[in-house]
Amino acid sequence: MTDRPAVAPAMRHRSMRDHNLGVVLGEVARRGTVSRAGLAVATGLTKSTVSSLVGELVAARLLVAEGRTGEGERGRPGIGLALDGGHVAGLGCEIGARRLAVAVVDLRGRTRVRLEQVGTNRRSPAAVFDELAALAAEAERRATAQELTLVGAGLAIPGLLDHSAAGRGRCVVAAPNLGWRDVPLDPYLADLPPRTGLPVAVDNEANLAALGELRLGAGSGHPSFLVVTGEVGIGAGLVVGSGLYSGADGFAGELGHVVVAPGGAPCACGGRGCLETVAGLPALLRAAGLDPDGGLTPLLDALDLPAGDPAGDAARTAVDEGAAGLALALTAAVHLLAPGLIVLGGTLAALGPVLVPRLDAALAAQVGALRGTAPPVTTSALGPDAAVLGAALGVVDAVLADPVRIMPA
Amino acid sequence: MTDRPAVAPAMRHRSMRDHNLGVVLGEVARRGTVSRAGLAVATGLTKSTVSSLVGELVAARLLVAEGRTGEGERGRPGIGLALDGGHVAGLGCEIGARRLAVAVVDLRGRTRVRLEQVGTNRRSPAAVFDELAALAAEAERRATAQELTLVGAGLAIPGLLDHSAAGRGRCVVAAPNLGWRDVPLDPYLADLPPRTGLPVAVDNEANLAALGELRLGAGSGHPSFLVVTGEVGIGAGLVVGSGLYSGADGFAGELGHVVVAPGGAPCACGGRGCLETVAGLPALLRAAGLDPDGGLTPLLDALDLPAGDPAGDAARTAVDEGAAGLALALTAAVHLLAPGLIVLGGTLAALGPVLVPRLDAALAAQVGALRGTAPPVTTSALGPDAAVLGAALGVVDAVLADPVRIMPA
Repeated sequence: MTDRPAVAPAMRHRSMRDHNLGVVLGEVARRGTVSRAGLAVATGLTKSTVSSLVGELVAARLLVAEGRTGEGERGRPGIGLALDGGHVAGLGCEIGARRLAVAVVDLRGRTRVRLEQVGTNRRSPAAVFDELAALAAEAERRATAQELTLVGAGLAIPGLLDHSAAGRGRCVVAAPNLGWRDVPLDPYLADLPPRTGLPVAVDNEANLAALGELRLGAGSGHPSFLVVTGEVGIGAGLVVGSGLYSGADGFAGELGHVVVAPGGAPCACGGRGCLETVAGLPALLRAAGLDPDGGLTPLLDALDLPAGDPAGDAARTAVDEGAAGLALALTAAVHLLAPGLIVLGGTLAALGPVLVPRLDAALAAQVGALRGTAPPVTTSALGPDAAVLGAALGVVDAVLADPVRIMPA
Repeated sequence: MTDRPAVAPAMRHRSMRDHNLGVVLGEVARRGTVSRAGLAVATGLTKSTVSSLVGELVAARLLVAEGRTGEGERGRPGIGLALDGGHVAGLGCEIGARRLAVAVVDLRGRTRVRLEQVGTNRRSPAAVFDELAALAAEAERRATAQELTLVGAGLAIPGLLDHSAAGRGRCVVAAPNLGWRDVPLDPYLADLPPRTGLPVAVDNEANLAALGELRLGAGSGHPSFLVVTGEVGIGAGLVVGSGLYSGADGFAGELGHVVVAPGGAPCACGGRGCLETVAGLPALLRAAGLDPDGGLTPLLDALDLPAGDPAGDAARTAVDEGAAGLALALTAAVHLLAPGLIVLGGTLAALGPVLVPRLDAALAAQVGALRGTAPPVTTSALGPDAAVLGAALGVVDAVLADPVRIMPA
């Protein structure tokens, strides 16, 4: 028999403390506030072990005593333990086609700093990363002023990433809407504040938007959902079992390049008839007779014009055709990925009132008959900030899952 | 912060023996033959612990001493340990649209029994399961004659399965090509030999075909690939990181219902223009002017006719159109799922010489530009047996991963 997966490592005692620090911290994160006695019951660890682990986590400023709980022994209230939201935080960064954004999120998931700079990033990577580093440094100053320590950074990029490019570290394979191809990232990432020495976690913007929605947005409470992000391009991030699915090579979720118009218009990716050529923002604007670089507002204004107005009718026809294309691509996504919910983000969220009823109807007709029901379509609560918040939350989650990475041995 | 995933359970000592039995067995499965000393090095367990675990696994007839290895202490050869292929085995069953199949596979992945019964299964589930139980009983008799003990069964079904239908146990939600909808399975499964009392593992046939290809076929050695199975319907099973991906609800991989002809012919699923209406075997036969229930051979014969022969030309046009539809659906699958390899199985494998070059060219044009390369397309080595072998291997894998399920406590 061949190709058996590598077995899980045998349990040894040496790593138990590290493992159990994460178990205790994760249990607190899940419950909000809990006593030492409650932690012992939940984890199966002895009370003395829990006390020792809690002591280390408090010293590392990851946990803090907060109020009392009813979970103490013999009905006496215990001292409550909660995540310490006042000290450790993660930095999220995003390079969008038309803006840079940074955000600082604390251990409790609260956004503490948020900065944005609007302008095209269809420029050299060096110029874009210079500006991003300046924005990140400003965010770090503002975090420090709030007594926060940034323990790591995450970065969202609208493109395909190779995390193991032979000999060159991590690379952007292709980011058509930035005009980037084969860009090694590690030299730029090393200079990005907060320069902790820990690697910056880079991911596709749709994947990080999905993480943001999972923790703070429309995906909260849903074990499985697909986030569709629309800006110049269209991407998708899938959460399954409360974790991100990104395929073997990280290239999964490229909804924007599903073919919805065979033999149709050429796409920036090199293909033809991709969803982006029908439902990307520039495509919608062009089809509506508007400036393709003019942003979303003129389109929303045109959609508000009364029936019979030529500009209004053109905008409605353009959005109808975009919705039909999006419905075809989402039909493929539902059949192949089987999400329980579809969340529209970015510019697609702003078009939600027009898009959602059309998509619901199309999915009911095309997938509802086979499956009994089609997944509902909703719009993002985080709007354009989902990805940058997701990037910061990725740092926070990594600390909660494995706190020793920022603790003394 | 909401919706944090449940934390991993804290490590406790009680379950270590159970866990480490699986670690040792898995290590032997991965290496083929290994000494006790080699196992101690590979697992990090002490030699006395390894010896004790090995003793239990030999007593349970899961491991057997076999030859010698060069891995003993100080260069002396050690006694080799290997999986015991002579005693424990798994039963695989498959309900196809047009056949029933059963197979017995031993711990070493060798097929020891294989039986098939041809005929439509577009009948009542009771009638189909009666015949399947008789076939399974015959397989069990033949396995017993070879001194094999069947420790469990797996079943492949060409449809959507609900593993948690409220109050009704496991159900077939929809199997359009069997004409089944909302069929509770547990009453039938309880009567299926070998009646071990352990639950029968039921899965979609494409998922189990992917497992078969992973272990024994074209997927062997590939960490990520998509198996496309074609019979009356078309399904897909995805392997990522050497494990099956089946979505949150198990409904993922329904490639046959990706829309490739918007507004096209009605499909058995209730939708229109699905891939099955263009590239399923009855659709190909109909488009070629052949009897849609006549099986693959007349189509292959027609494809062999010289150019200019009307029957041959009709067959070639039909397959060209099927290939174009399949290319569109696979483009969506590559962009959404990102497999590293595409394996054509079932009737699609038989059409491989015609399909593969067309699919390679279409994928290179549509996804190669963005990603640098498109995943290669190949044909299955297991042909129509991939799913039934996968069902049996699922039983074997479950034993190797967690041997205590068939061992005394």
